[in-house]
Amino acid sequence: MNILDPAAGEHAYELDRSHVFHSWSAQGALKPFVIAGALASTVWDFDGNHYLDFSSQLVNMNIGHQHPRVVAAIKAQADTLTMVAPAHANLARGEAAKRILAKAGRPFSKVFFTNGGADANENAIRMARLVTGRDKVLSQYRSYHGNTGAAIVATGDWRRMPNEFARGHVHFFGPFAYRSEFWSDSPEQECERALHHLERMIVSEGQSTIAAILLEGVPGTAGVLVPPPGYLEGVRALADKYGILLILDEVMSGFGRTGEWFSWQGFSREEGNWKPDLVTFAKGVNSGYVPTGGVIISESIANAFDDVVFPGGLTYSGHPLAMASIVASIDAMDDEGIIDHARVIGSDHLEPGLAELARKHPMIGEVRGLGVFWALDLVDDPDTRNPVSGAVIARLKGELMSRGLLPFAADNRIHVVPPCIVTADEVARALEIYDEAFTAVE
Amino acid sequence: MNILDPAAGEHAYELDRSHVFHSWSAQGALKPFVIAGALASTVWDFDGNHYLDFSSQLVNMNIGHQHPRVVAAIKAQADTLTMVAPAHANLARGEAAKRILAKAGRPFSKVFFTNGGADANENAIRMARLVTGRDKVLSQYRSYHGNTGAAIVATGDWRRMPNEFARGHVHFFGPFAYRSEFWSDSPEQECERALHHLERMIVSEGQSTIAAILLEGVPGTAGVLVPPPGYLEGVRALADKYGILLILDEVMSGFGRTGEWFSWQGFSREEGNWKPDLVTFAKGVNSGYVPTGGVIISESIANAFDDVVFPGGLTYSGHPLAMASIVASIDAMDDEGIIDHARVIGSDHLEPGLAELARKHPMIGEVRGLGVFWALDLVDDPDTRNPVSGAVIARLKGELMSRGLLPFAADNRIHVVPPCIVTADEVARALEIYDEAFTAVE
Ligand SMILES: Cc1ncc(COP(=O)(O)O)c(C=O)c1O
Ligand SMILES: Cc1ncc(COP(=O)(O)O)c(C=O)c1O
Repeated sequence: MNILDPAAGEHAYELDRSHVFHSWSAQGALKPFVIAGALASTVWDFDGNHYLDFSSQLVNMNIGHQHPRVVAAIKAQADTLTMVAPAHANLARGEAAKRILAKAGRPFSKVFFTNGGADANENAIRMARLVTGRDKVLSQYRSYHGNTGAAIVATGDWRRMPNEFARGHVHFFGPFAYRSEFWSDSPEQECERALHHLERMIVSEGQSTIAAILLEGVPGTAGVLVPPPGYLEGVRALADKYGILLILDEVMSGFGRTGEWFSWQGFSREEGNWKPDLVTFAKGVNSGYVPTGGVIISESIANAFDDVVFPGGLTYSGHPLAMASIVASIDAMDDEGIIDHARVIGSDHLEPGLAELARKHPMIGEVRGLGVFWALDLVDDPDTRNPVSGAVIARLKGELMSRGLLPFAADNRIHVVPPCIVTADEVARALEIYDEAFTAVE
Repeated sequence: MNILDPAAGEHAYELDRSHVFHSWSAQGALKPFVIAGALASTVWDFDGNHYLDFSSQLVNMNIGHQHPRVVAAIKAQADTLTMVAPAHANLARGEAAKRILAKAGRPFSKVFFTNGGADANENAIRMARLVTGRDKVLSQYRSYHGNTGAAIVATGDWRRMPNEFARGHVHFFGPFAYRSEFWSDSPEQECERALHHLERMIVSEGQSTIAAILLEGVPGTAGVLVPPPGYLEGVRALADKYGILLILDEVMSGFGRTGEWFSWQGFSREEGNWKPDLVTFAKGVNSGYVPTGGVIISESIANAFDDVVFPGGLTYSGHPLAMASIVASIDAMDDEGIIDHARVIGSDHLEPGLAELARKHPMIGEVRGLGVFWALDLVDDPDTRNPVSGAVIARLKGELMSRGLLPFAADNRIHVVPPCIVTADEVARALEIYDEAFTAVE
């Protein structure tokens, strides 16, 4: 355990600023927050200040920090066998794959493990291209799929632009009623028009050139854009109609974030029993306790590689330490009813609480979400829906931190994304903090 | 701890075959070896059979299996704090970066952490392109750089071919005297002609279009192709002459494999004090106990991103569990003199022992290597140097396994790549096993 010595915090800060190069940033002006320790939904610094973690770090801490069963499983596996090469078998890997497949159900039959979300998408795209013999991948402008070659070019947001070195990527607009690209005036019309737009894109690109449609179950970093009822089922129908594979990126939306094991399970309850062909995952599968991710592969795609070499692989595919953490995490989520808890926290606490917050603060243009996956879309003016400036977000972050809440901010939004195990009391306390912070900034 | 119950081994095997999708293979006929446990240079199965691990798994187990200090560090970090987002600071990350930079020396100033080798190369290529404002990356045909978008297209071998979806990659031939592409008849001539060839490629591609030359310190998977004296220094000189950055991929050749912290340190002792601009690492940095990797960045490149956003990042960059294992692994390698040990095992045991083996078995066309990084290039006929068939390699693998040695095979080669901590007695025993296996196959 760390001793909570402020000098240790300063030391960690100095080491970081001197030696560590950070993601997605200009390095010069960074002032990283130093985390000393964490438990469940709380993190603390070396000065002993505690914060409600309503970021789940990068929306990955689904089971909360330092869950004792997951920590124990990592320690036990570390004592037994930390690493074997992917070509060899080990018990933890088979057990992890079995559990993931049990949650995904049919028609999925195999799991290919990776180190994170980006390489999961790389390998799903690889499979889709090889199985179809086609090149193109269609993905949404409002999306994030990871930072490597194909994943970053599949990504729609600004992060793609300096990185366009992969070919075969085409982007389309998904449904987003609050900021419609389709001049719609209802969620139904938004859905219908978004599907029309996608079909026009497929036909115009040429159906026989398209390997896959890749999209997030719920686009996360882009703003928790919960698809309107019928949209994903409609995409599935278009994929079937044109013989295109459907890859669902469940890296952020999977393993409890939406109150389901996989986001499609919530939607398909209302929409019939559609499934994607390939599913990518990371984050919530083990809450990021050990880096891992992967692709869940439907039987027909897996079988296509029975006699044909799959030309992809990585040193840490199915790493035992990661696998042990997956097994413990899924078992703990099962035994403790964590998925159901996340759904109820969403419907009974976050949804009404955030709606109330929006009523009080006109800056909150829209509240969107489900489960423990919410966004507050902040605007200068409720009529123009003009996004607030970065300066407003920076002030809000400061106000939230100073009141003991670690926020997640993206563009003009605050994402409300606590661990799935967050308690009703913690949500109530967080809602107070958000309220005070908005009041302070207004 | 696993109990060594054969039924557990069968269970692990069945789970693997039913649910796990494997790297770089046709899935149908796989018969994975099940590993139950491991210690130092030995692994064992659930039947209690022990094997000398002369593969180091995927040439990553540099410190040996289950080193007590690294295991203890992982367990302690697991108790404290498994994961924080890359934007926040934590003590383990700063300590890991500091140690890596201390080993690399000037002009390196910062470390960007990734999950493995492929994404390390992706991010190094990204930095080189952004800093130079140019697109092209030159790399060798005999190389492996990882399985993601840019890394797999930078790769030279067959694995690139089904994956060519990234632009801006050009390949050249490196020096390889035993199978020269340059009609040379000495290592000196091979070096001179390889540098001439590279310069002709640079000029013909257009120096102002080339961001970086990317190459392995010692091309590993391609056959442990130790560069002739002067080659790397010559590449550095060409890079300087034409204003191109030099990225050295030390994923396999770093952290003890060649008997140095970084392969260039051995070469530059003879060749003067040249350094690459960017260094990628993974594997040996923590022997793969937790998935990690990264880029070591020279000061001028790091500073170029002080006021400019670096457009790359990943959820598990600088993961505390991985960072703690790096700190413990580097400290243990220092305290136990593991790097020097690897060098001496190479010069005093493997080099003479493998030379003796080659004298006895004409199938061994060439022995190449240094430190604990060796390849036996197997041929049908010493004169034509025609590679042996896959069937011969398969039989050799069987003979080695049945005698208690876990081998590393690639193409027509057996790579002799034990952990850096392998003992002289283990090397002697392994040499006996190789000898018997070659005799059995001949
Ligand atoms: C939907 C989605 N896909 C992929 C990724 C990339 O995952 P990683 O950072 O582990 O590569 C992310 C990360 O935020 C994500 O949210
Ligand atoms: C030289 C080299 N670079 C990069 C890689 C890719 O590393 P990873 O499998 O961790 O992505 C490897 C893996 O064998 C390698 O040997």
